[in-house]
Amino acid sequence: MLILNKNINFNYVFIKFLFTVQSLNDTNVQLLNIFMRDNKLTMINWAKDLFPICRSITGEGTRKTLTYFEKLNPEFKRLKFKTGQKVFDWIIPKEWNIKNAYIEHSSGTRFAEFNKCNLHIVGYSKPINRNISKKELLNYIYTQKDQPNSIPYVTSYYKERWGFCLSENQKNKLPDGNYKVFIDSSFKKGNLDISHAILKGMTKKEIFFSSYVCHPSMANNELSGPVLLNAIMLYIKSNYPKSKLTYRFVLLPETIGSIAYLSKFLKVMKSNIVCGFNLTCVGDERTYSYVSSRKGDTIADYAIKTALLDLPNVKKYSFLDRSSDERQYCSPGIDLPLCAFSRSRKYPEYHTNKDNFDVVTQEGLMGSFKVMKKIVDVLELGIYPKTTTFAEPSLSKKGLYTTLSQKGKYDDARWLRMNLIAYSDGKTNIFKIAELLNEPLDNLCKEYSILKSKKILK
Amino acid sequence: MLILNKNINFNYVFIKFLFTVQSLNDTNVQLLNIFMRDNKLTMINWAKDLFPICRSITGEGTRKTLTYFEKLNPEFKRLKFKTGQKVFDWIIPKEWNIKNAYIEHSSGTRFAEFNKCNLHIVGYSKPINRNISKKELLNYIYTQKDQPNSIPYVTSYYKERWGFCLSENQKNKLPDGNYKVFIDSSFKKGNLDISHAILKGMTKKEIFFSSYVCHPSMANNELSGPVLLNAIMLYIKSNYPKSKLTYRFVLLPETIGSIAYLSKFLKVMKSNIVCGFNLTCVGDERTYSYVSSRKGDTIADYAIKTALLDLPNVKKYSFLDRSSDERQYCSPGIDLPLCAFSRSRKYPEYHTNKDNFDVVTQEGLMGSFKVMKKIVDVLELGIYPKTTTFAEPSLSKKGLYTTLSQKGKYDDARWLRMNLIAYSDGKTNIFKIAELLNEPLDNLCKEYSILKSKKILK
Amino acid sequence: MLILNKNINFNYVFIKFLFTVQSLNDTNVQLLNIFMRDNKLTMINWAKDLFPICRSITGEGTRKTLTYFEKLNPEFKRLKFKTGQKVFDWIIPKEWNIKNAYIEHSSGTRFAEFNKCNLHIVGYSKPINRNISKKELLNYIYTQKDQPNSIPYVTSYYKERWGFCLSENQKNKLPDGNYKVFIDSSFKKGNLDISHAILKGMTKKEIFFSSYVCHPSMANNELSGPVLLNAIMLYIKSNYPKSKLTYRFVLLPETIGSIAYLSKFLKVMKSNIVCGFNLTCVGDERTYSYVSSRKGDTIADYAIKTALLDLPNVKKYSFLDRSSDERQYCSPGIDLPLCAFSRSRKYPEYHTNKDNFDVVTQEGLMGSFKVMKKIVDVLELGIYPKTTTFAEPSLSKKGLYTTLSQKGKYDDARWLRMNLIAYSDGKTNIFKIAELLNEPLDNLCKEYSILKSKKILK
Repeated sequence: MLILNKNINFNYVFIKFLFTVQSLNDTNVQLLNIFMRDNKLTMINWAKDLFPICRSITGEGTRKTLTYFEKLNPEFKRLKFKTGQKVFDWIIPKEWNIKNAYIEHSSGTRFAEFNKCNLHIVGYSKPINRNISKKELLNYIYTQKDQPNSIPYVTSYYKERWGFCLSENQKNKLPDGNYKVFIDSSFKKGNLDISHAILKGMTKKEIFFSSYVCHPSMANNELSGPVLLNAIMLYIKSNYPKSKLTYRFVLLPETIGSIAYLSKFLKVMKSNIVCGFNLTCVGDERTYSYVSSRKGDTIADYAIKTALLDLPNVKKYSFLDRSSDERQYCSPGIDLPLCAFSRSRKYPEYHTNKDNFDVVTQEGLMGSFKVMKKIVDVLELGIYPKTTTFAEPSLSKKGLYTTLSQKGKYDDARWLRMNLIAYSDGKTNIFKIAELLNEPLDNLCKEYSILKSKKILK
Repeated sequence: MLILNKNINFNYVFIKFLFTVQSLNDTNVQLLNIFMRDNKLTMINWAKDLFPICRSITGEGTRKTLTYFEKLNPEFKRLKFKTGQKVFDWIIPKEWNIKNAYIEHSSGTRFAEFNKCNLHIVGYSKPINRNISKKELLNYIYTQKDQPNSIPYVTSYYKERWGFCLSENQKNKLPDGNYKVFIDSSFKKGNLDISHAILKGMTKKEIFFSSYVCHPSMANNELSGPVLLNAIMLYIKSNYPKSKLTYRFVLLPETIGSIAYLSKFLKVMKSNIVCGFNLTCVGDERTYSYVSSRKGDTIADYAIKTALLDLPNVKKYSFLDRSSDERQYCSPGIDLPLCAFSRSRKYPEYHTNKDNFDVVTQEGLMGSFKVMKKIVDVLELGIYPKTTTFAEPSLSKKGLYTTLSQKGKYDDARWLRMNLIAYSDGKTNIFKIAELLNEPLDNLCKEYSILKSKKILK
Repeated sequence: MLILNKNINFNYVFIKFLFTVQSLNDTNVQLLNIFMRDNKLTMINWAKDLFPICRSITGEGTRKTLTYFEKLNPEFKRLKFKTGQKVFDWIIPKEWNIKNAYIEHSSGTRFAEFNKCNLHIVGYSKPINRNISKKELLNYIYTQKDQPNSIPYVTSYYKERWGFCLSENQKNKLPDGNYKVFIDSSFKKGNLDISHAILKGMTKKEIFFSSYVCHPSMANNELSGPVLLNAIMLYIKSNYPKSKLTYRFVLLPETIGSIAYLSKFLKVMKSNIVCGFNLTCVGDERTYSYVSSRKGDTIADYAIKTALLDLPNVKKYSFLDRSSDERQYCSPGIDLPLCAFSRSRKYPEYHTNKDNFDVVTQEGLMGSFKVMKKIVDVLELGIYPKTTTFAEPSLSKKGLYTTLSQKGKYDDARWLRMNLIAYSDGKTNIFKIAELLNEPLDNLCKEYSILKSKKILK
């Protein structure tokens, strides 16, 4: 199930080759897809490897997941927060682990078997081994009535209870009689685990990526986020081995994980991070969306808005509709320049067993990858372009402007070129310029590269 | 005609009882109405008491009006500005008093009798006692041609003239012949009177209420304003005996009164006032309206805008359409954070004898009272809410968040709770948060109270 | 062809007489038109005088043009930048001069004769005297295919080439056979010439007008701009001999001229200029238009926007659509508070021989003159009006407010008067006030004059 470690150097060479081309055009994407598929390095395969593991806020499943990614990107370091430790207003809970669980009818037929689908057991259920009547059992069964064929994902936060999740239809077919309910789970003093990696660049300025690893067997929420984060990390290492910017990556359990992480790194994060993304539900093919930061005017807001400028079906969510770790990263006094990035945030399969690989595809993941790649490429090119001279530069002597002036004979590039220069005042970020010009990032960056190479912009 | 002073302590106890309930719900409002009616303490009764008095910029009528309110709220102190005193660009005028006036036909029939309606005499008319022809008389008669049954309210500002006001129909029926015109008025060196009160709170920060007492027998413009101001004052004294904020109340003649008052208190007002309202035309039931401050972005603007969020028929007037003392309070260099608050500012009965108790009702006044009460309650709760911890607080351990997570099972309160917390950064005023969340002030404040009591916000 | 110099003093007296009236109403404009026509001083006549001259970036034609204006406004001083001099990122090119040019068919028939229309020769063509086949010749012929009857204006920028311009129809009628191509032009080390004038006022604050003189025989682009600039200069000298503000006028070749000028005067221009206009294509009667400054919020933006408030067919161009010297004046780090002002910026005759006096008329020029005059009048009146007292001034004692208050009897002036005062806080520029009040500049200024004369505003 784990990655073939012996191939990793070989893989890197290939990835590097594929990524060194200036932009990820369709051919490159196709090549990359083929390569990743054949080498089992595709994001979708990583997600499939990890799908069966029963993750939670804490415990073995989460650790196993982090270990997988640590092998893929050895720069990850493990952080541990002990049960009982105070992190801001919160307390690190006990570790929860589960080995097995089921409901067994007196006839011997088993239902809600943990081994078949770990969503059957309410998260953080306490251990139980008891015979009860069907009537009593029904008090401990959770279903999603509006989706009668789906098993819902239900978790108990920090209150000891137990329960099973069934589809409404499964529940209705439970035979009469008595049942044994069995959950082989345990609570113990232990740790909350987080993996983080810092790829140091030439400046302290940091780009931040976060995703979470606390959900059991669901594909879009959440495996899509962590696998995209790892693909971005591979891309940066291979394509920007001497990156201008520093990159911070973190994989943690949602909410309490990000709170714990912030409690440890808030000062450095506030002082260094210039742009960040929380990656969640990034694997489907339905739409592209993002959640604004609290005030909606950070570099991350401009970056994601303009990276999506030429894509169809883009949806912007207000900060009022946030739902993941952006809740912490953008909270008052923390206020990191960060947006949440997703493909579909609201979809029927969300938080049910239907959130599987019918929803998440390699194509969906690659769509998200291309968006993040585009932003990274721009950030590495330069955040605040600035002209090297007063007034317009003399472009014709540098071969960048026609030497023959006749109306109607200017090419389109002139408009983009002159306007990119006109707004390169060293104070307006490149994404805001893209917005002002309503110009797709790809085009703008191609032009920016040319002007940098000619020393017209810096 | 004056209030039963002996009951005042008893009344206070009742008022306090009624107001100590958290919010002025419909039952409370009904109880308060009944109590006020039975004890002759209703705002409408105060207005009816004061209606017959002939007020003007200066003189006995205005003093009598101020004395009435000083008995209702003994904290009022009288300020006097002497005739001839310079206040900014203005000079305090002579006192004008009037005892009687009428037009008498040679047949003995009298018209435009002061004793029947004091609007019949042009304000600041000089004394006259003369026989004149009907033809000459007509030069001194003012009517409102577009409203032929109404007697208009006409005043001369600082130029000595005389005149009578009739309805157009009355004028047309004046019999031929000769007339005696009689006005027993006088000008003398005297004072311009102002009543003001300061209820000291725990901080110097001031909330300011102003209204004016210079109009003769009209109900909405102007008695509604002063009676509402006095009801607010009673409410604050009984409900916030140890108020957090300081409250400044002032009753004065319009324009020159507010200019005189500002000339004396500008420095302290500019340094302390954080929110203010000029109360005018607050007694009808037709609409709710307000006039923005000069720049439209003060706490008062946000407060009144959001206090009216869930009311029907709300009208916002631009500062360009101001017409009362907000002209002075918001003038360049003064720029107090103040809005004018009204029910209807433009209505057909305005400045005629039809502005009476068909227009102004206790229900209309109570509507205005509820709006101002809501704002006071919010201000006392806290202007700039701030979280007590970094990141989101742990709400489930405080019983403020479900301990079981399943999609579709969150209550509506969660949205409001989480978003109020998210914007409580200590820099965004509570009214602006209400606007951001598009949430009625009542709901927002209920939530704010809960979060304050749990020490999540301060 | 040149102006009758002996009349100039006489003319000044007349111009002064015409301009001393408060505002340029229709009668005045008519008088001014008659006067200008009869004295050969009309802008249109200046343009007609200059039309035949073959101007370019450098050379005799441009010098002759500048000399003409220097006689009209003797305050102009000549600046010279030597061939080879570096100005920011640019190098002053060699002087180009041309005496004669034509294409001669072996039959002796001549085409594209310089003496008939100087647009026939590609600007900056190198000398040539050679016999070639028709086939080869066609490689050197430029036409405007989408306008088959028009001769296009084509220029080579700093690359030595040669060519002729014909209408598409002329080209198609060229007879078969051999041709002699003859261009008697020359390149030499010389100068780039600029004329500028500074009319010193009582303060250092400068108003800046720029136009360009590098286009051969075309009327709207460009002669309209320079002649308007000279008319404005005459107006200011005659009407504001002791102007409050300093005025800077400059005539230069487009692009390299403004870059050269900025390279010499950037510091003083940045520190002194408060409002500026680049005048281009200001002679037709079709529309009024302007190009915003880079950020769109300078005094010039407010000035031109409100000066056009009551005119029909106004078009605002984004800075992204700039095309003339505003490109330099508003570039990053220079950022002068300047807009381009035009009548029509995009018109079919643009950059062809059809841009003649069918397009440009005296009426069109006078329309532009009136707009600029209006702005100058406002600027001289005062940029930041400020009240001389706190609170509203006592207007009735100054005869500026009715002394009798009755509803519906206030005149319209009251609204304008009170609101102009209300926004005269010394921080809001008069044009922004015009925008806030949505009030034509003429009305606003009339009111401002009254209030200044009464010492209510300063």
